[in-house]
Amino acid sequence: MDQTVFEIISVGNELLIGRVENTNLHWLVTQITIMGGFVRRAVTIRDDLSEISTVLRDSIGRGTDWVVMSGGLGPTYDDMTLQGVALALRREMEVNEDAVSMMKRRYESLVAQGVLSDYAMTPARVKMATLPRGSVPLRNSQGSAPGVLVTEGKSSIVCLPGVPKEMKAIFAESLMPFLEKNVIRLHSYSVTLFVSRIVESVLSPLLDEVLKSYPAVYVKSHPKGVEDGVSKIQIHLMCSMADGVESKRRAVAAGKMLSSLIAGAKGVVDRVEEAVGQG
Amino acid sequence: MDQTVFEIISVGNELLIGRVENTNLHWLVTQITIMGGFVRRAVTIRDDLSEISTVLRDSIGRGTDWVVMSGGLGPTYDDMTLQGVALALRREMEVNEDAVSMMKRRYESLVAQGVLSDYAMTPARVKMATLPRGSVPLRNSQGSAPGVLVTEGKSSIVCLPGVPKEMKAIFAESLMPFLEKNVIRLHSYSVTLFVSRIVESVLSPLLDEVLKSYPAVYVKSHPKGVEDGVSKIQIHLMCSMADGVESKRRAVAAGKMLSSLIAGAKGVVDRVEEAVGQG
Repeated sequence: MDQTVFEIISVGNELLIGRVENTNLHWLVTQITIMGGFVRRAVTIRDDLSEISTVLRDSIGRGTDWVVMSGGLGPTYDDMTLQGVALALRREMEVNEDAVSMMKRRYESLVAQGVLSDYAMTPARVKMATLPRGSVPLRNSQGSAPGVLVTEGKSSIVCLPGVPKEMKAIFAESLMPFLEKNVIRLHSYSVTLFVSRIVESVLSPLLDEVLKSYPAVYVKSHPKGVEDGVSKIQIHLMCSMADGVESKRRAVAAGKMLSSLIAGAKGVVDRVEEAVGQG
Repeated sequence: MDQTVFEIISVGNELLIGRVENTNLHWLVTQITIMGGFVRRAVTIRDDLSEISTVLRDSIGRGTDWVVMSGGLGPTYDDMTLQGVALALRREMEVNEDAVSMMKRRYESLVAQGVLSDYAMTPARVKMATLPRGSVPLRNSQGSAPGVLVTEGKSSIVCLPGVPKEMKAIFAESLMPFLEKNVIRLHSYSVTLFVSRIVESVLSPLLDEVLKSYPAVYVKSHPKGVEDGVSKIQIHLMCSMADGVESKRRAVAAGKMLSSLIAGAKGVVDRVEEAVGQG
């Protein structure tokens, strides 16, 4: 594994009782994959101090390059992600003056717009600027709580708000430019076959043959059920390598080999799609 | 914690590269919450034998009552959830005759419908009936691979297919009737306030006051951003207790106390919704 390894930690009771669907996770893994990063694991936990610190400590212990956390940065009593980070890293919590300045500018602008009546740094607001020692606050253009970047050994830990608009803004504005320079990039090429009249158990030995010839190609079949008495499957072939020309060559060749094996087994390849990237 | 504790393990590369959104997870936590279960943690991992067995072993080690796994039961080389379970539990894999019978009946019916041309138990099909020793197969009315139930100490491990239709069918048909009898049920009542003209940092100390008076009530605020210069927040109050009348009484009283505190801080409660359950 020479790719940069990411893990995601989503924090929030609402994600584990079904009140809110974790769309942040899908967005994050898509962005990270497009940049060439490898997402190894994603964990969703409750607003629970011990869970937050345990899960983060385990992730750092696995040598994860980037731990991306979302949720639990707000002012209320159950927003405890940063306390969890401080506990995991055994660091003090302290008021971060850069974070205070960011928030003051934000509140001043809200007061000017008439949305807010005062910009005093109340205890609830100071809480959002109280970060584990050594943190760098990341500007939140869409809300109050700044994002947080803190490093521990070889791991970088990023904490983002749970509100999707704020999470995406901080990720895109503060992290992407940095990650795009630092993530070890692979070039992916993918070929998708839309197949009918073959079921997965008949397809399976054919996939094994393709994999023997093209071990660098990742193959995954997605059964789409039976439509009008005809079984449908999508098969996704993907190759990721440092050399983009070679990854395309192998993905396409593997797709052609599989197409002819399917035809030999009386299946029908209805359509083939190719795409640069994960497809 | 006297609730029955669940953890979810979702297996599949496609979930961590952004190709497929993990809608199974949202569905599962919703069903489990409605039944009165407590979902402590949800982990998403790749089709990786070592990850599967490690994550399952950790979950059992935390004393989880029910570990619900989805994905990786199919016939292809990268479907390795059951091997991961066997590795975690240090059990042999063996052909399960009940699973073979279930699959034969399914294939016979597909051949009768003309969807499939033969019902031979090929190696790829036998793979789907090869389960960790001591497993009980669960009938899959929507696909080939049976679900699997296996117990280890106080933990029950359920493996479901990743195809949503199949996952839901097995859960609803085989597990729900059993879980509804065995999960320790709590009665939840929830009150949701739709509030404007107050921001979260002003709201936060008001929530703290409500929590001091009603420690059994769970309160969560969801900022909805600024609309036409007016800040909007939804606040969800929920109480879960063995006594349904008492949980309603407390949730409603906490909602009333919060409403008057909000009015005192010049916020406006636009609407209140009440619901039996998690709301």
